[in-house]
Amino acid sequence: MPRRLVVVNPALEDAHISQIRAVAEKNGFEALFFQKTAQALPYLDNAEVVFGQSARLAQNSPRLRWLCTPSAGVDQFTAPGVFASPDAVLTNSSGAYGVTIAEHVVMFALEMLRRQTDYSAIVARREWKRDLPVRSIKNSHVTLLGTGDIGQEAAIRLRAFGPASLVGVNRGGKNPKGLFDRVVLQDAQDSVLPETDILVISLPGTPETFHMLDARRLALLPDQALVINVGRGSVIDQKALEKELRGGRLCAALDVFEQEPLPPDDSLWDCPNLLIAPHVAGNMTLPYTKERIVSLFLEDFENYCAGRPLLRQVDLKKGY
Amino acid sequence: MPRRLVVVNPALEDAHISQIRAVAEKNGFEALFFQKTAQALPYLDNAEVVFGQSARLAQNSPRLRWLCTPSAGVDQFTAPGVFASPDAVLTNSSGAYGVTIAEHVVMFALEMLRRQTDYSAIVARREWKRDLPVRSIKNSHVTLLGTGDIGQEAAIRLRAFGPASLVGVNRGGKNPKGLFDRVVLQDAQDSVLPETDILVISLPGTPETFHMLDARRLALLPDQALVINVGRGSVIDQKALEKELRGGRLCAALDVFEQEPLPPDDSLWDCPNLLIAPHVAGNMTLPYTKERIVSLFLEDFENYCAGRPLLRQVDLKKGY
Repeated sequence: MPRRLVVVNPALEDAHISQIRAVAEKNGFEALFFQKTAQALPYLDNAEVVFGQSARLAQNSPRLRWLCTPSAGVDQFTAPGVFASPDAVLTNSSGAYGVTIAEHVVMFALEMLRRQTDYSAIVARREWKRDLPVRSIKNSHVTLLGTGDIGQEAAIRLRAFGPASLVGVNRGGKNPKGLFDRVVLQDAQDSVLPETDILVISLPGTPETFHMLDARRLALLPDQALVINVGRGSVIDQKALEKELRGGRLCAALDVFEQEPLPPDDSLWDCPNLLIAPHVAGNMTLPYTKERIVSLFLEDFENYCAGRPLLRQVDLKKGY
Repeated sequence: MPRRLVVVNPALEDAHISQIRAVAEKNGFEALFFQKTAQALPYLDNAEVVFGQSARLAQNSPRLRWLCTPSAGVDQFTAPGVFASPDAVLTNSSGAYGVTIAEHVVMFALEMLRRQTDYSAIVARREWKRDLPVRSIKNSHVTLLGTGDIGQEAAIRLRAFGPASLVGVNRGGKNPKGLFDRVVLQDAQDSVLPETDILVISLPGTPETFHMLDARRLALLPDQALVINVGRGSVIDQKALEKELRGGRLCAALDVFEQEPLPPDDSLWDCPNLLIAPHVAGNMTLPYTKERIVSLFLEDFENYCAGRPLLRQVDLKKGY
């Protein structure tokens, strides 16, 4: 009986499926492909490797050795008991989303600084109003909370706009590839918030990052600061941010929220000084992202079959 | 009687006015400041230098020696007879707008590639729809029609996104600062249009550029190509473009139009696959731009007073 790989991903195209199947068969695996988790459930009993992002795949695979999620975030896998198999390891697809999320960060920043939401309304009324005060990334002080793949790719792009500074905030104090003007320790972030025009958050959702941006820290930001969150919604105390936005002191562009989907009756929907996206910054509908996800998985699949360490293994206790 | 400088610009702040007045007085000029052209008319008889963007200033200044317009485009000054004084020279503020217009170019590109106009509508309906196919600047072939200040600043920023190529198109074949992968002569642009995913137009409005992008050239662009125009509306045959947009073959983001303001009953307002901005890419409401305009003017003002050549003199026949 061949070893079994189960892949659940509606975004994969025929070429990706052929590519994965070929590598699997070369290594003595049969590869089964499904669009939805429910379709895969009857085939999980013998699944040794699963490539998919639903926690139900882990819960229903008793013989699982390795699960690779095509997402970067792993929140749904970190609760105790998610993995039915005690031997299973988890890898993520960190490194697949930096490019597309960094583009979203720059777009968010420019849309807010250049008053694009206001100009959209003006244009919708067929008006020719041109006198809104705008701002620029040029000469702005940018702080990036999180200096992983997303923070680094954002820094590369933001640098080209001539910011006054690009400051990274992380836990180790390392300056990856020298991309940041300086790096501040996470514990010392209070020192940099008061001189931040644009705050870019790309942190994962963990107990440690929960409400890291609370009312007190938001109050440290200067007037008119722009808060961009493309990490996880739990990093910001959403009610505290909404208060600042409604008060007109801060503005924000959010791709992630404390509860997703954002409930239809949530007061955030009509909050001023806010641009909302329905968690699409790291959308898998971008062909480049799909190719990266598949190639990162196959790289680790070869490692797995050769008995080498997996490159993107997640520490389930830390949550990233 | 002191020599007279007349400045007409509603966007200038007190600090700019003080700065200009000080340099003027140091050079034996009295400086008069007005918000609107009509207010300045009674003071133009003895104006030697004018810093303003209305053609009426040129028409009503019989002793004018030099007019500096705070805009980059000079369309309104190139018709015969605009200058009442035969000795007047014209300079523009080319170099003041590259930064802000380049930001608009990147924003336009990302908004169209990432379906932001569609997502705006989704969010306005409080929907959580996430599956629109998106595209990326990464690995896209970008052609920049016009490699002046705006084209160069756009190239610097677009480069950071990892495009497959950045091709410049100009008349001399020079590759300014090596910013482009290659430069194609304007006469040979037909060779590069078929391999262009994103076309960025920053050309001035001149007889030579009139309808440069006509139906035939637009047809050379591949399916789904994105046309961005931040130069002058006259460069594109607007009716031909609208046909391509309505047919769904091309998409576009336009800051400039053949007629401005775009008439309220123009069919372009509800054209699909199009993002409209009311000529704000080079908006003078950005503080950085205002500072550049003033410093470029004062640089040439010192040149003028010292009898040195002006740096940004416009060839009225060529139109730039």
